Amino acid sequence: MGAVKARRLPRAVRERQMLDAAVRSFARHGYQAASMDEIAELAGVSKPLVYLYLNSKEELFTAVIRREAQALLAVVAEAVVDPGAPPDERLWAGLLAFFTYAAEYPDSWTVLNRQARTHGEPFAGEAARMRDEITAFVAGLIGEASREARGGVAITERDVAALAQALVGSAESLAGWANETPGVTAKEAAATLMNFAWSGLGNLMKSERWSPR
Amino acid sequence: MGAVKARRLPRAVRERQMLDAAVRSFARHGYQAASMDEIAELAGVSKPLVYLYLNSKEELFTAVIRREAQALLAVVAEAVVDPGAPPDERLWAGLLAFFTYAAEYPDSWTVLNRQARTHGEPFAGEAARMRDEITAFVAGLIGEASREARGGVAITERDVAALAQALVGSAESLAGWANETPGVTAKEAAATLMNFAWSGLGNLMKSERWSPR
Repeated sequence: MGAVKARRLPRAVRERQMLDAAVRSFARHGYQAASMDEIAELAGVSKPLVYLYLNSKEELFTAVIRREAQALLAVVAEAVVDPGAPPDERLWAGLLAFFTYAAEYPDSWTVLNRQARTHGEPFAGEAARMRDEITAFVAGLIGEASREARGGVAITERDVAALAQALVGSAESLAGWANETPGVTAKEAAATLMNFAWSGLGNLMKSERWSPR
Repeated sequence: MGAVKARRLPRAVRERQMLDAAVRSFARHGYQAASMDEIAELAGVSKPLVYLYLNSKEELFTAVIRREAQALLAVVAEAVVDPGAPPDERLWAGLLAFFTYAAEYPDSWTVLNRQARTHGEPFAGEAARMRDEITAFVAGLIGEASREARGGVAITERDVAALAQALVGSAESLAGWANETPGVTAKEAAATLMNFAWSGLGNLMKSERWSPR
């Protein structure tokens, strides 16, 4: 009965179930130790069906990295979408969305931030490409904000790229810590980073630079 | 002749040569592809001697991670050692020392920041422990600075830990970018991070917090 019912589900739904199961399994056991048996069981399908749809453990892991990175990027992009809002409010909305995602989908965040990086190629390269996409998106926002703040004159492209790297790196680092530290909420982590980053970025937008005495 | 001369070198010197060669080899080829043959050749010793001293490729890589992390920590610790200097000057000195290390020893930085993390356990765990040590050290500095700024009352330990994570994450990310981007000097990268981080941290030290409107 269950098998008959199961067979009626469309391919897209089945595939989503497999990827959901894979995220959980990879996050908990790591790439090497995660088993296709467990993934099939968690997804409620047979192992041959997993291979039929996703080909191999390697392709399954790659598909997971892509899907989770795109989900994260979409969540952040949607949060900062209002171009009429002041830059600090957009940054706040983006950070809150990011830390909320990392807290609500800790397995997804673990796969992206730890597993994808710690199992060599081709995964590290895939994760790096996704990170580049997110960093480019953040750089776009910083560039926009600086043009607004200076009435059309942006800070250099290299400055913007460097600031985006700093911001993305601090967010990654803080999200890893927040998920491992009991009692730290997404809002608290976002507020800490906003306080760390904004006044610095904020002053930069106004051409106020720190310099050695 | 060369071999006779070589045999006269003390063990510590030989070991250092092997570790130097290993850093270069691991940074360039990655853990998997690096060969003990190349490492022995770069170090000017026989392969059996590398095994005799360091036991295995795994132990050699672990020894490399430990030595390089300690070197980096020592350089940063020495730069910020003057407790009489104001906190922003100490942060500047620390950042400059860090980015200078990453620029002068790009192979060392690549091994620590990329290779150690991307080749699974036990290396990722070793790298994480070293990173925890560096983060704890940074947290100590932030805690000190905040106590000074507030006349003895520190911000909470959790705030300090979170800020240290953010600062370390942004420095890691920016150093990776700086080493991959032609023409970015250590001083430029350090100045960017100082500008990003200081006014934010600086305002926090004075209890000035950003809050959503």
